[in-house]
Amino acid sequence: MAKSAPEPTRLVLCMVGLPARGKTWIARKIARYLAWLGYNAQVFNAGDYRRKWLGAGHRADFFDPRNDEGARARSEMAELALADLLGFMRLGGEVALYDATNTTRSRRDQVRARCSAAGCTVVFVESVCEDPSILEANIRETKLSSPDYAGIDPEDAVRDFRQRIDHYAKVYEPVHADEPASSVRLIDVGRIVVLHRIEGYLPARLVSLLINLHVVRRPIWLTRHGESTHNVEDRIGGDPDLSPRGHRYAAQLARFVRRQAMEPPVVWCSTLRRTIATCAPLAVPAMPWRALDEIDAGVCDGLTYREIAERMPDEYAARRKDKLRYRYPRGESYEDVIERLEPVIIECERQRRPVVIVAHQAVLRALYSYFMDLPRERAPFVEVPLHTLIELVPAPYGYVERRHALAIEAE
Amino acid sequence: MAKSAPEPTRLVLCMVGLPARGKTWIARKIARYLAWLGYNAQVFNAGDYRRKWLGAGHRADFFDPRNDEGARARSEMAELALADLLGFMRLGGEVALYDATNTTRSRRDQVRARCSAAGCTVVFVESVCEDPSILEANIRETKLSSPDYAGIDPEDAVRDFRQRIDHYAKVYEPVHADEPASSVRLIDVGRIVVLHRIEGYLPARLVSLLINLHVVRRPIWLTRHGESTHNVEDRIGGDPDLSPRGHRYAAQLARFVRRQAMEPPVVWCSTLRRTIATCAPLAVPAMPWRALDEIDAGVCDGLTYREIAERMPDEYAARRKDKLRYRYPRGESYEDVIERLEPVIIECERQRRPVVIVAHQAVLRALYSYFMDLPRERAPFVEVPLHTLIELVPAPYGYVERRHALAIEAE
Repeated sequence: MAKSAPEPTRLVLCMVGLPARGKTWIARKIARYLAWLGYNAQVFNAGDYRRKWLGAGHRADFFDPRNDEGARARSEMAELALADLLGFMRLGGEVALYDATNTTRSRRDQVRARCSAAGCTVVFVESVCEDPSILEANIRETKLSSPDYAGIDPEDAVRDFRQRIDHYAKVYEPVHADEPASSVRLIDVGRIVVLHRIEGYLPARLVSLLINLHVVRRPIWLTRHGESTHNVEDRIGGDPDLSPRGHRYAAQLARFVRRQAMEPPVVWCSTLRRTIATCAPLAVPAMPWRALDEIDAGVCDGLTYREIAERMPDEYAARRKDKLRYRYPRGESYEDVIERLEPVIIECERQRRPVVIVAHQAVLRALYSYFMDLPRERAPFVEVPLHTLIELVPAPYGYVERRHALAIEAE
Repeated sequence: MAKSAPEPTRLVLCMVGLPARGKTWIARKIARYLAWLGYNAQVFNAGDYRRKWLGAGHRADFFDPRNDEGARARSEMAELALADLLGFMRLGGEVALYDATNTTRSRRDQVRARCSAAGCTVVFVESVCEDPSILEANIRETKLSSPDYAGIDPEDAVRDFRQRIDHYAKVYEPVHADEPASSVRLIDVGRIVVLHRIEGYLPARLVSLLINLHVVRRPIWLTRHGESTHNVEDRIGGDPDLSPRGHRYAAQLARFVRRQAMEPPVVWCSTLRRTIATCAPLAVPAMPWRALDEIDAGVCDGLTYREIAERMPDEYAARRKDKLRYRYPRGESYEDVIERLEPVIIECERQRRPVVIVAHQAVLRALYSYFMDLPRERAPFVEVPLHTLIELVPAPYGYVERRHALAIEAE
């Protein structure tokens, strides 16, 4: 999806659903994806406002709809979050995610009216889930570590949180097809998806992300190809073969994956010789993706950085000044690379098996910055050394990383 | 969407719906899109089998469920189509579209069992529409020209066709969430879309196409940039400016669009100077898309074909031998261009306004071959001369073309 959308973007994605339905997980996932693509996107979480202004530690009775004081306080906090959200949109925000329960029709009508008045399009994103095992896992993984339950016995906390859910369930009105707004209803994490009046460039493209979401946990392994004959000479680009050291890395990588993978992984490489050769010793055939090819250095292809600095000092300086946006003459920028990697991200989100991606420095920097939710500006500076496997392990709201420097045996 | 899917494709898309719900339109649209992307895809239409083997001209009573003979004959024809479909899949077909009503649960269960036994995944694609104006338009546009109604008074034909629908409606069971298959339900041409267990690379990506379908008719205008300084010298690639003649074409183009467009069009160009300059005189700002840049000629960029033939005779010969798949060293093939144009196609399908695309020869050949449903092999040979506007006008199942050679005034 090009950031260069065919129309200006002023979109509010309003989450809907009972507690523990993964609203925060979905909202953060969308925000991460959009920020990576270059959108000015931000999440506004009503619970964070409550904990900030009223202090954490509210028990279930606070969420009882019959508790007038609690209801008033919660409504105030939801309003504060919405006010900040609209302020963000006024100041040039492109996509805001309103992470609150919004479980009643009247509340949703209010939110829609307020956003429309501010010139924003609203899409409701509702998560419905009655699978007790998913709910239980979600409560234990994310709610027990919430400041609301600091120092509370886990079983008491789970019990209290279930009561909180029951209080919301009493007044819950699922999004209905007759509500005059666009909506995406995700039932049981993508088992059923109902799209209602999904129009506009960005909402239509976001559907690709949303229908591929799942909660299966599996690692993602990122690595550059083994050392190439160009690496030895410090040249960029081209389509060189592996050096003898590079071949030894390929053998090490295959050993590592064989030992570590709990099930056969999916393996993707670029269409360039050095990644295909790096995958050759793996037990699983690698699929070459052109989207994983190294950044196209255009007229600088095959040169060393020193040669670029000497022959094209202006280009060299321009690149140092803005490495994210700098585009090699007749070649690509990091922004271009991010754009062409979008299908890889969608496909990676869809995969339920471990994924091994054997690619190139700039490409891996771009992918890494998505998974680790880095600001785009930092993407071109991520350390991705040769002969190092970056393992991304799923965590409640993203990934944690482990780096494995694979020892290359001497010849 | 890369043709190089991460898994082999053996997919049957089984249409479901009452007559006149656009099943054939949707099936053909999917088939055209997939064939363009390089899939071996084919539509099997049960009505065609009936007309071929039993002769056209059946009246409504033939479709009455109480007509045992008619029911048996229709069932036989549906079986013939399904047998051919399964034969196609056995011989290496990747995606088959089964274009029949499949309006009962028991029929769908049968189809699913047969396809599963043949190692194919089934996705039901149901079209539901009760909007009388859409139905009326569909009947008049597509059914009256069917051989079934050759020589019949149009009003009689419409009446008969409505009776045929009523017969099917008596036994119609919409796809239900408890059916153990993947399904996409399109309600009122995309107003509501219900996705059920949509898994796998291709089904998930097809959703992008399906949710953007609409029945608004608007022209698409394709044109190359005005003549460039490279065109004058017969050089390919590069990023040249327009020649004086090229600038005059840009002015002519703006006049033509102003006169012809019934509403403000959407204008897209590439990121190269010659298309941006061609759009400059247009009243509407053009959005530059990198996906619309000319085919990357890699090491041949900036050369003339004669220079390529002299300096790299092997490359020249390889390109002549297989122009679709030939990839310039360090550059692109036509297949690569098609792949990167996929988001442009999806966005073009989504647009309800006229679209003007100002791009380059290879890119326009690829786009044209999608809209005109040409075999991929013919794409590299489509005539796309300079200073000619190709107008694609919607027709019931595709587009018809008009070419406007815009006169360039003498200097």
